[in-house]
Amino acid sequence: MADSEQVSRREFVKMAGAAIGGLAIGAVGGYSLIPPKEVTVTKEVPQEVPEYPWTYTKLDVEAVKERAYNAYFQGGCSYAVFEAIIGELQDQVGYPFTAIPTRMATFGSGGLKGWGSTCGTLMGGGMAVTLMTSGATLNDMMGWYGETALPIYVPATAVKVEGDIPKSVSDSPLCHASVTNWCNAAGAHSNDPERAERCGRLCADVTGKIVEMLNAEADGTFAAAYSDPENVVTCGACHSSSGPVANVNSHMDCNSCHGDPHASS
Amino acid sequence: MADSEQVSRREFVKMAGAAIGGLAIGAVGGYSLIPPKEVTVTKEVPQEVPEYPWTYTKLDVEAVKERAYNAYFQGGCSYAVFEAIIGELQDQVGYPFTAIPTRMATFGSGGLKGWGSTCGTLMGGGMAVTLMTSGATLNDMMGWYGETALPIYVPATAVKVEGDIPKSVSDSPLCHASVTNWCNAAGAHSNDPERAERCGRLCADVTGKIVEMLNAEADGTFAAAYSDPENVVTCGACHSSSGPVANVNSHMDCNSCHGDPHASS
Repeated sequence: MADSEQVSRREFVKMAGAAIGGLAIGAVGGYSLIPPKEVTVTKEVPQEVPEYPWTYTKLDVEAVKERAYNAYFQGGCSYAVFEAIIGELQDQVGYPFTAIPTRMATFGSGGLKGWGSTCGTLMGGGMAVTLMTSGATLNDMMGWYGETALPIYVPATAVKVEGDIPKSVSDSPLCHASVTNWCNAAGAHSNDPERAERCGRLCADVTGKIVEMLNAEADGTFAAAYSDPENVVTCGACHSSSGPVANVNSHMDCNSCHGDPHASS
Repeated sequence: MADSEQVSRREFVKMAGAAIGGLAIGAVGGYSLIPPKEVTVTKEVPQEVPEYPWTYTKLDVEAVKERAYNAYFQGGCSYAVFEAIIGELQDQVGYPFTAIPTRMATFGSGGLKGWGSTCGTLMGGGMAVTLMTSGATLNDMMGWYGETALPIYVPATAVKVEGDIPKSVSDSPLCHASVTNWCNAAGAHSNDPERAERCGRLCADVTGKIVEMLNAEADGTFAAAYSDPENVVTCGACHSSSGPVANVNSHMDCNSCHGDPHASS
């Protein structure tokens, strides 16, 4: 279906000028060249989806970290990572990245609208990565998130709390597990300013990790490093799709939620 | 940064014709109006992000269900929901929906690249909804997903398994919990064709539910219906951000993973 924008009279006149080349606007052999009042010219907007995947351009890791940290306080975790990567490409490259409002990623905040499911950084990161690649880095993004003591990033100017803050390992890609582990490690409440500071810094860390991997992939040097932990392998021997029970599709650390369900109580 | 496409000579001539209005191309009073050979006119591509949020247009619920079901077998669950809604708007409305390659949503497949975290339908749905609204429907999307026996949809022509298939309640927005509950209820394996059929139909159900809610919101008749179940309220009395412990941010059903952690073993 065709869509169009009307061109203003000023733009119309500019186009008319180009169209008639070197011919002077005014009168030619007694004929007036003043454009008729009712004429409109349409300017087409793209009706074809820009070819997928879009081309990644290497980004500065420190710049995207800072952008993600600040964006967290504007639109939450999922937005922060997506905005830092795609927003930076909007500024550096322009179209087609300018076609996407980065605020579409705000849905992921707090583990999807505050539900505490997957950490929003991983959803915003997943969206950005998959706009440009086949997602070969996503398994490492997920694994690294769960096994790394976060946050690492320390902002030059903090929004909520200056200086170092406690770190924790989430053992899970889930928001509520990640936040709870951090609250327990830090002796903090989830509504403390320090918890918001922690999540803002974590956005910087995840964005930095993703961009490091995308840069390596662009250089042809990315090598996947993450493999499932022992409990996923052990439980998966029966429960994964290649096992005899074959009723669990997951790479999440089983013990972090389920302990050992086969232990006698 | 400016980007542009050159307009073909044919398009140039069309523009020239429009620009000079009713004036005949050819000769006017002895002056030739043939465009000079070296003139080029540039057509700009959009460098400004299309104004957010984008305007939703009501969609046909049955059409998007069928589209989501078939898309699942092309790109997984997250893609299926996003493609059904945004792809349908690409076809019905065009720009700006045509600016987004719906394949960017494939990251969410199998709970984010097969990790079994949040069901991809909810991530693809979250992206689509938040491109166009403030996301007032997302809490109901999450709650409805967890408490409804799915799948409900029966395709006119099935891809994997014809006819009725077993239903299950996930009690969780997580992919692996949802799939495991269904495998156990159906006596099926996660790599059975029937499991893929189930997930394809579930994509149709989630898409249909979202579009019903978006249509109601467009009509001004949407009313939020979901509230936290009893165990979330009970556990939250201490653990939510308004309780004295304040270390868990979640609306997920606590018991589905944790049973009662305060019970004596």
